[in-house]
Amino acid sequence: MRFFSDNAAPAHPKVLEAIAAANRIDTAYDGDEWSRRLDGAFSDLFGTEVRAFWVTTGTAANCLALAALCPPYRGIVCHRDAHIEVDEAGAPGFFTGGAKLILLEGEGAKITPEAVAAACDAIRNDVHQVQPAAVSITNATEYGLVYRAAEVAAVGELAKQRGLKLHMDGARLANALATTGESLADVTWRAGVDALSFGFVKNGGLNAECLILFDTELADEVAVRRKRAGHLLSKGRYLAAQILAMLEDDLWLENARAANAAARKLAIAAPHRLVYPVEANELFLKVTPDEASALRAQGFDFYDWGPGEIRLVTSWDQQGEALDRLATAIAAL
Amino acid sequence: MRFFSDNAAPAHPKVLEAIAAANRIDTAYDGDEWSRRLDGAFSDLFGTEVRAFWVTTGTAANCLALAALCPPYRGIVCHRDAHIEVDEAGAPGFFTGGAKLILLEGEGAKITPEAVAAACDAIRNDVHQVQPAAVSITNATEYGLVYRAAEVAAVGELAKQRGLKLHMDGARLANALATTGESLADVTWRAGVDALSFGFVKNGGLNAECLILFDTELADEVAVRRKRAGHLLSKGRYLAAQILAMLEDDLWLENARAANAAARKLAIAAPHRLVYPVEANELFLKVTPDEASALRAQGFDFYDWGPGEIRLVTSWDQQGEALDRLATAIAAL
Amino acid sequence: MRFFSDNAAPAHPKVLEAIAAANRIDTAYDGDEWSRRLDGAFSDLFGTEVRAFWVTTGTAANCLALAALCPPYRGIVCHRDAHIEVDEAGAPGFFTGGAKLILLEGEGAKITPEAVAAACDAIRNDVHQVQPAAVSITNATEYGLVYRAAEVAAVGELAKQRGLKLHMDGARLANALATTGESLADVTWRAGVDALSFGFVKNGGLNAECLILFDTELADEVAVRRKRAGHLLSKGRYLAAQILAMLEDDLWLENARAANAAARKLAIAAPHRLVYPVEANELFLKVTPDEASALRAQGFDFYDWGPGEIRLVTSWDQQGEALDRLATAIAAL
Amino acid sequence: MRFFSDNAAPAHPKVLEAIAAANRIDTAYDGDEWSRRLDGAFSDLFGTEVRAFWVTTGTAANCLALAALCPPYRGIVCHRDAHIEVDEAGAPGFFTGGAKLILLEGEGAKITPEAVAAACDAIRNDVHQVQPAAVSITNATEYGLVYRAAEVAAVGELAKQRGLKLHMDGARLANALATTGESLADVTWRAGVDALSFGFVKNGGLNAECLILFDTELADEVAVRRKRAGHLLSKGRYLAAQILAMLEDDLWLENARAANAAARKLAIAAPHRLVYPVEANELFLKVTPDEASALRAQGFDFYDWGPGEIRLVTSWDQQGEALDRLATAIAAL
Repeated sequence: MRFFSDNAAPAHPKVLEAIAAANRIDTAYDGDEWSRRLDGAFSDLFGTEVRAFWVTTGTAANCLALAALCPPYRGIVCHRDAHIEVDEAGAPGFFTGGAKLILLEGEGAKITPEAVAAACDAIRNDVHQVQPAAVSITNATEYGLVYRAAEVAAVGELAKQRGLKLHMDGARLANALATTGESLADVTWRAGVDALSFGFVKNGGLNAECLILFDTELADEVAVRRKRAGHLLSKGRYLAAQILAMLEDDLWLENARAANAAARKLAIAAPHRLVYPVEANELFLKVTPDEASALRAQGFDFYDWGPGEIRLVTSWDQQGEALDRLATAIAAL
Repeated sequence: MRFFSDNAAPAHPKVLEAIAAANRIDTAYDGDEWSRRLDGAFSDLFGTEVRAFWVTTGTAANCLALAALCPPYRGIVCHRDAHIEVDEAGAPGFFTGGAKLILLEGEGAKITPEAVAAACDAIRNDVHQVQPAAVSITNATEYGLVYRAAEVAAVGELAKQRGLKLHMDGARLANALATTGESLADVTWRAGVDALSFGFVKNGGLNAECLILFDTELADEVAVRRKRAGHLLSKGRYLAAQILAMLEDDLWLENARAANAAARKLAIAAPHRLVYPVEANELFLKVTPDEASALRAQGFDFYDWGPGEIRLVTSWDQQGEALDRLATAIAAL
Repeated sequence: MRFFSDNAAPAHPKVLEAIAAANRIDTAYDGDEWSRRLDGAFSDLFGTEVRAFWVTTGTAANCLALAALCPPYRGIVCHRDAHIEVDEAGAPGFFTGGAKLILLEGEGAKITPEAVAAACDAIRNDVHQVQPAAVSITNATEYGLVYRAAEVAAVGELAKQRGLKLHMDGARLANALATTGESLADVTWRAGVDALSFGFVKNGGLNAECLILFDTELADEVAVRRKRAGHLLSKGRYLAAQILAMLEDDLWLENARAANAAARKLAIAAPHRLVYPVEANELFLKVTPDEASALRAQGFDFYDWGPGEIRLVTSWDQQGEALDRLATAIAAL
Repeated sequence: MRFFSDNAAPAHPKVLEAIAAANRIDTAYDGDEWSRRLDGAFSDLFGTEVRAFWVTTGTAANCLALAALCPPYRGIVCHRDAHIEVDEAGAPGFFTGGAKLILLEGEGAKITPEAVAAACDAIRNDVHQVQPAAVSITNATEYGLVYRAAEVAAVGELAKQRGLKLHMDGARLANALATTGESLADVTWRAGVDALSFGFVKNGGLNAECLILFDTELADEVAVRRKRAGHLLSKGRYLAAQILAMLEDDLWLENARAANAAARKLAIAAPHRLVYPVEANELFLKVTPDEASALRAQGFDFYDWGPGEIRLVTSWDQQGEALDRLATAIAAL
């Protein structure tokens, strides 16, 4: 039973239905009526005017945003464990043309305004050192921790003071909001976020993510960069359809709640084993190698995550027997 | 009625069925069983060992290939009207890190060994001028002309003599082969092609193209470049499924034959208007602006293509009444 | 006797003296008093506020300028025979991160507003085609022709209308002005030039060129890009010293006049052989292979330039007997 | 009195003489007889066949080497305080096309095979993480520590085992060897170094550094990359002349010995204040802000280097009274 990644979960039936429906419209690239609905749909959702770009991966969303926010000769401040640093094969360097990631420490992959300020202060303001241009945070973080709106706003405030743009990698933003109950607006543009990678694929989508620009002046540049990076699909209508299906009746939030509930059920089974509080749909557990083997022997699939730790990720579709069995198995370790 | 692009055509029902079926497997990235079947499936299809990479656009397939075939400081010989030069927003420059496209003339966007040789000979062999590293041809060309295997082999032979790698943009390779009846092997690796962008999206696919490496030593590099460019989808199984569906029972060839037949039907309606012979699924017709307006007034949709010319593209699903009506309308101009 | 390139000429004695003098000041990078004098010296020379950056090659000057004027995803309009296209090993692609050179025809490597406009008009305004961002002209051109101020202004006006920045490669700007007698101001910023590569090395310098920014808001970016490209020399004072020596008492203009006079003397010797009018210090002559051999047999060194043509370039130091002998030899062919 | 950088020191008289002498030869680019002598001169010096490329900055030497040793999609292991990471404005990212610097800890900016191995082991071998391709070490380090030949060889051995190329930033290699008395061969190619940035500018040169390739197969690529980066000077003979002057009678070693002797004299004046052993020509001293002010009040110029520390760098020309006075002043603090 799959607990190693929410990327492995199926697409939601409504997403598949939307794809089938999109088979009946026939304009190419992003000229179709569904793709053209995205700007409005997200502007309504966020309560402000935004520009929305479908892409097929979080890496594309992240790095198109970073390329628009940071010139090749400057840097992006982020956590040492950020996905853009650790798991995107150097894509930020590729998309930006060689910009530098300026790495911060911080518990559970969260960063604070103080850490950002300290990193900036340590850089001599001359042409020999790479000057920062942007900050990128991940919400929920790579360790499943959540930024509250006030926390993002504090980073956003510091960024503004320093003349830095702010990007949010929201591959699991839905999971974060399902926990905090805060609004999309409060945790993003009202908190100073300029560009958001809004994740859908881990949350029941098939292969459509969405890059949201609150700084709408970047839209023309991003449109060209998307094409130039090979991310302007000719049949983009199938991506737009997926995203619109995820927005309809807040399916994105419903799915995230289900995934989070599953994670909480597992967390409750062994609270003393948790490396981090479970605030989204990821669990990091302290288990011995033998314990890990025992779980695997029962058919549960997950990643080792450093010595004596494992990572479990729950998905929108995991609410049944397998989950109960895993909770029981963890409790019984 | 849509005749402006085969990108606007729907996906084939079997492709949608395959996506639905892929919803029942659950490994992430390209670790799933279907993605892992691609290498074998294409090796069988081509009769030689190949490595196959799903991507979502022809631009990605083309430019990942070019980046692997040409270092940043050298050049790629191609036709002046090649898609990589004209319609990919400079993506070759982005993916390769600034390699140069060295442009050739040639009727109907076809290039000859003589033209390649002449272009190479015009380059001084010193560090001041950009030296070529690769040749890229498009089959069928952007004007719907077809390279026979012998023609590709002649280019391939010249390329080999000059130490150049050979790439084929096969966005409409299926259409080319549906016309020539030649084998995939003969027109690609046996003719010296090192990397092929094998198009499926224009031919009934939804959003899966395939990059085929005959030079399999490039595979590790391409795998990393694909990830780095944001083209490694987390739920790649849905791409693999589409491609396997297209291969099953030669659906790719069947679809191309249907599209070509539609184009031929239109061509026969007004042979004297043809700018180029119709060898695939594209028609370029000489029509006056008034004639173009008359066709549009009857509900037919297509692109203007320079003064006094229009472009019509037929698709795998166009065999019925609309096609007949267009043929009649063209004949009646 | 050297007539193949002004790059082969010696440095002027005053330049060597300046280098020796610079050996007595000791601040690193561009913090020395001489480097800091450049902005003022060139602002005085041009009659407007400029920012001046020493670099060691024309390629560096050109490409730092182009990178500041054109984002990676757009294009630079220039002549097909421009040095940046033909003789810089693809450096524009490297410095800009893959921007495209959009090539124009034009007699003697000169471009006109009409040619620029036509090239721009031929580009569809969508994300699939690379949109222009800048124009680059060479004055004097690669064929020794000169733009008058009014001609530059016409290109500048068109550029402004189209929202394009204007760069001038002035590797031989001194030679151009020595001919026209026009002012530096009129042929550059008053004509709409945003950035100028002001050449000194071909004109008696040792290894210092200067990038002049009339758009001074680009200065901070260019300063960083210069460092990032490895062009911020630690002992930059020796470059500043050379340039200041060239400016003193208009040595740059005096040298150019001498080189031009030498070229004119040769031109007069065989006016019927000239491929282009001799407006600077380059001559392109129609000679048969036998005639070329005959000249070489007498010890004259020059380049072949296409079938039946040779190129001769005169230098600031060529006014004596060798020149007379060459003139006689040409006349006697 | 200048003690803030050896970049501020004058050029050695013999270097100036060589430049003057080069004024009498007249071939352009690197086709002159002096540039062509470099390969042989350095091959003799190193006792093995090498290829030598003049450039004007250490950044250019370092980054041309790194671009040849590491593809855009891989990484270079180096110390966190390495010049390429800290003081080159992100030039490695620019030259390589976005390769990643993988940072190590290590006392005094030295790295060990163990540290390299640990960093490599921490990288999952998949396409999501950037895989290392090269190691870069600085000798002497940024803190004036020296690698003995055996230490380099240990890193070289590890690099070879892991399939990594080895680069040495030898901006102060002369100073290192002046201390150890070891041979150039032992500390470079015999220890596994593939490419060396051999510094001359800090050591009495004017503006010529040299990139040495022990892996001579990289030479063609480096030659093109040098041109493409704007680092092929048209009057390169003046660079070659400088370097040959530095090699003559081991001037490079003599100058380094002088600089090191000056540093030792200062070190002896206050051994208890040394942050690091003084193994080359740099001193890092613990002084209070008041003490630093007192030194400055006496006319000594140097950099603050973190709280309570200053950096002093001695030069080839500092052996006289100013040095004695500084030694006395330090002792008297």
